[in-house]
Amino acid sequence: MRTIALLVSYDGTGYSGYQSQPEGNTVQDRLEHAIRLLLGEPVKVHGSGRTDAGVHALGQVVSFRTDSRIPIERWALALNARLPEDIVVRAAVEAPQAFHARRSAIRKTYRYMIDSSQFPDVFGRQYAFHHPKPLRFDAMRESLRHLIGEHDFTSFTSPNSTKPSHIRTLYEAKLLHLPGGDGFQEEGRGKSCLYLTGNGFLYNMVRIIAGTLLQIGEGKRQPEEMARILAARDRAAAGPTARPHGLTLMSVEYGPEWGIDWQAAIHRRR
Amino acid sequence: MRTIALLVSYDGTGYSGYQSQPEGNTVQDRLEHAIRLLLGEPVKVHGSGRTDAGVHALGQVVSFRTDSRIPIERWALALNARLPEDIVVRAAVEAPQAFHARRSAIRKTYRYMIDSSQFPDVFGRQYAFHHPKPLRFDAMRESLRHLIGEHDFTSFTSPNSTKPSHIRTLYEAKLLHLPGGDGFQEEGRGKSCLYLTGNGFLYNMVRIIAGTLLQIGEGKRQPEEMARILAARDRAAAGPTARPHGLTLMSVEYGPEWGIDWQAAIHRRR
Repeated sequence: MRTIALLVSYDGTGYSGYQSQPEGNTVQDRLEHAIRLLLGEPVKVHGSGRTDAGVHALGQVVSFRTDSRIPIERWALALNARLPEDIVVRAAVEAPQAFHARRSAIRKTYRYMIDSSQFPDVFGRQYAFHHPKPLRFDAMRESLRHLIGEHDFTSFTSPNSTKPSHIRTLYEAKLLHLPGGDGFQEEGRGKSCLYLTGNGFLYNMVRIIAGTLLQIGEGKRQPEEMARILAARDRAAAGPTARPHGLTLMSVEYGPEWGIDWQAAIHRRR
Repeated sequence: MRTIALLVSYDGTGYSGYQSQPEGNTVQDRLEHAIRLLLGEPVKVHGSGRTDAGVHALGQVVSFRTDSRIPIERWALALNARLPEDIVVRAAVEAPQAFHARRSAIRKTYRYMIDSSQFPDVFGRQYAFHHPKPLRFDAMRESLRHLIGEHDFTSFTSPNSTKPSHIRTLYEAKLLHLPGGDGFQEEGRGKSCLYLTGNGFLYNMVRIIAGTLLQIGEGKRQPEEMARILAARDRAAAGPTARPHGLTLMSVEYGPEWGIDWQAAIHRRR
């Protein structure tokens, strides 16, 4: 048996999330369907984690096991020919037998994109949350430093979470402000992207952090409250869960022992 | 009567073009419908020019006349509340009585975006033409200089054109190559944008230039052929008409005598 890992992008707009569910219409379903069309047999695909309905991915990683002898450099093209245009396999690599997209992951990076232009950018509206009032980017940035490090993130997950531990480590938390697409820049306007990198994320964690950050940006809360919200270990202390379409899973990282090298795979393929 | 001009963005994916037609589903129809909802009376809207089905606009300009006394700074918000989310009025200005979005225009800029990554960027797929093979950007750039200036562009328009003259002046023609979104850059890959600025464009002119440019990029034609194609004044000499979804009308310019200042309008509004 071979273990194959895929680097996958998808526009989550039309899907009920990554992971299979009884109602269907998930990214996992589409990937398993494409592999089945290619191999003529069912294959179970494991994602690095689920993404909710409407959430996007630039660099989701999935893995599966197969007896197929199709050369590794042919997989991406063969699967893309069998996938809808809003799901693209960017690369395929042969991984060590024990590799598992979720269990082997050590770091993930998410982006939450906010468009605080008065009127939304029509070309990016599916990928950014539109907030029509200016935001205090400096206050938002200041609040983020309280989140860095190892913490109990209970305030930033659903009260229904069944995880045995809510302790996670956030390695990086930054807010980048992009020059306005319309050329008429004004204070607090334009697109801003929250990037969070950590060793793991609880259910809704990025979206609740983004919802809290928006309240700080609006001036409803002060930056130093972020520390108190974290310390409260109470979902009610944090802000609302920001809408899913602003969220994108950017990348998933694995330890060097797995030898996952997407760049080499992309170059070899050509 | 007041003359009002609007700066409008739209995602043309779902529309049968800008200009009204018997089958409906055009951007003009949606704008006229929104104005009618606001004023309670029909208004005829004039665009700076038509855009084909599937073509987008960042800065289309439209004008209309009305007796309404609604203050100019309220129009954008009022119309956006009555428009679908893929059409956004970015600003409204009060123009001199004689202003007309098409007749008063002196320069337009179009962008044709090409994605020559092996697999398309899922997040930009609606706005870029996907060409899965690498392109010779330098050859493409070299060919463009032959188009600059005043020329008879008969080779680059439909043989059914009914325009009395095919002479137009191209002020600028450039190809910008954007860093690859996937971080794995390779020669001839990534996104490239053709920007054309001229005093006017014939039917399909930008798309035929883009289609010819793609043949030069692929190596099917040499850069110096662009001069011969232009001189031929024959549609058959040029390449195919590139697909509409890569095309965006970026901006329309008017002489200073009209006093159209979008930036001031956007700032006043807030």
